[in-house]
Amino acid sequence: MKVMLCTYFLHPPVSVSISSSSSFPSSSRSSLKLSVCCSAMEDESGRSSKFKEYPFVSVPHKSLMLDLVSTLENRLQSQLLPSTLPPYVQHCQNTTSTNQASLHFRAGHPDSSIDFIWGAWVHSELPTGGALDITSLFGYLNSSNDAPNFVFDMIRHSPTVLVFILDLSPRKDLVLWPDDLKTFYEDTQLDKHRQALATLPEVQPYISPSLYMRTLSSPTTIMVRIQTENDGGERMEEIIKNHLDPISKQVLGIWLDHCAFAKREVGDAERGYLKKRDGLIRNKSFEIDLESSLLLWFGPEVANPVLEVIKEYFTV
Amino acid sequence: MKVMLCTYFLHPPVSVSISSSSSFPSSSRSSLKLSVCCSAMEDESGRSSKFKEYPFVSVPHKSLMLDLVSTLENRLQSQLLPSTLPPYVQHCQNTTSTNQASLHFRAGHPDSSIDFIWGAWVHSELPTGGALDITSLFGYLNSSNDAPNFVFDMIRHSPTVLVFILDLSPRKDLVLWPDDLKTFYEDTQLDKHRQALATLPEVQPYISPSLYMRTLSSPTTIMVRIQTENDGGERMEEIIKNHLDPISKQVLGIWLDHCAFAKREVGDAERGYLKKRDGLIRNKSFEIDLESSLLLWFGPEVANPVLEVIKEYFTV
Repeated sequence: MKVMLCTYFLHPPVSVSISSSSSFPSSSRSSLKLSVCCSAMEDESGRSSKFKEYPFVSVPHKSLMLDLVSTLENRLQSQLLPSTLPPYVQHCQNTTSTNQASLHFRAGHPDSSIDFIWGAWVHSELPTGGALDITSLFGYLNSSNDAPNFVFDMIRHSPTVLVFILDLSPRKDLVLWPDDLKTFYEDTQLDKHRQALATLPEVQPYISPSLYMRTLSSPTTIMVRIQTENDGGERMEEIIKNHLDPISKQVLGIWLDHCAFAKREVGDAERGYLKKRDGLIRNKSFEIDLESSLLLWFGPEVANPVLEVIKEYFTV
Repeated sequence: MKVMLCTYFLHPPVSVSISSSSSFPSSSRSSLKLSVCCSAMEDESGRSSKFKEYPFVSVPHKSLMLDLVSTLENRLQSQLLPSTLPPYVQHCQNTTSTNQASLHFRAGHPDSSIDFIWGAWVHSELPTGGALDITSLFGYLNSSNDAPNFVFDMIRHSPTVLVFILDLSPRKDLVLWPDDLKTFYEDTQLDKHRQALATLPEVQPYISPSLYMRTLSSPTTIMVRIQTENDGGERMEEIIKNHLDPISKQVLGIWLDHCAFAKREVGDAERGYLKKRDGLIRNKSFEIDLESSLLLWFGPEVANPVLEVIKEYFTV
């Protein structure tokens, strides 16, 4: 995984004050008693409906997210198992509801090459006014397929500042596998999307403060900071609608066509290599990114039971 | 090797017209008869003196290069063998002397961890007026030491435009070896030099057109394009003297102290891995970078015998 709840891409994160008591009912499969509750809008047909509400982002932003999630789920339909996340993992919030997160997780069918798909949104009201909104989506393959993973993150710091990350994150050292560089990055002309976005005057390269996160990027990674004029966010919405939206959909299309549905021959030794490398990335990212982010936003009483569940799915 | 004669870092390279006859005497150890001569200023004490003249670059630029080369050679003194490059490889030019290159190569002592050090300058007069000047310096380790290589390149397109590349290029996949990321990049605080340079308003990130070259970068790579006001190059000389000079020396110092002189324990399996990875990089870089650059600048009659010699030292 490249980034989950991108603490490392954020400027100094928000401090969250967690109350030790709450009127929300407790719900946990862990032995910990939750003092602050997490609950999803549950219904029999889709337990992750809260995730797909995207209640805090703008119309073009929500439209992009819904299109990406539905494309991913529709194209991979038969390869995905239903969501089994407990409600308290599907949605979390602190006592004052100033910080909320909604998570979505679907494992791949054992016969498929999908390991899991994973999405999240986070809304965090800032003490200085305004809010931080993150929407993320990831597609991870298992060791039967050595193609890259799909990585998408939008981190809206304010109406006029946004960090945008879009990548097919390599699962092999491309220096040792130059044929994979050609197949997944050169032949698919992935770089043209990065180049197109870079022509906008509001777009600047963004460099993660975490050296580890930097090592996970592909050579065509889109990792940019977009800052628009102080117009209340109007220009940012235009950029989301006219640039981030089509580019994200095209890159997701490339991932589905050339990676997720690729017929790759992966020998036993290479499967071992992929398992080791994927495992290292996930464990490290869980530790330095997801764990610290959830603890920061929700405090240990809410975050720990959630992390316990996610860890089972996520780490190796 | 990261970059040699950085064609891939250049904007559309210069086309060089090579005459089929020349008044220069022929000098080649290959069977090819050179129609355009390459000759160095030979003297018994140092056959690479032409290389150290840097006749086409500004005073601060020359001063930086001489300091870097002398630091490298003085610190590694007992570990380096004398230069054995034939004169026609030490210096090349086309018939009209509009394109010249001077090369320097010293292999490491068999008992040392140095594979070789390598430097070059290129001067190419542009058909539109002005000239392109490249100065490069590299330090490569052998498989007894798994530390990064030293990579330095300055590509002056005009008095006011310069591409600057400075890196400790990793020789292992840092995703699989996070301890190396810590040792060589985090603990040495390498990133602060990139950050310091990025604060200058004239400095912008530079992204190589070659995806392969991008895969060779470390997470702290300095790869920037510097464009100054149209003041005849005065501000650029200031930037070279006050910023590129001290940063380059500090990074070379880090490479010498923490990489070249590091006592590393490298097992047999890891040595095999390093040999394979180093070999792949060198062969690929020779093919897509050095070979194409020399052929372009000097044509096959001059370039091929030079390439034949370099290939013996360089590729695996």
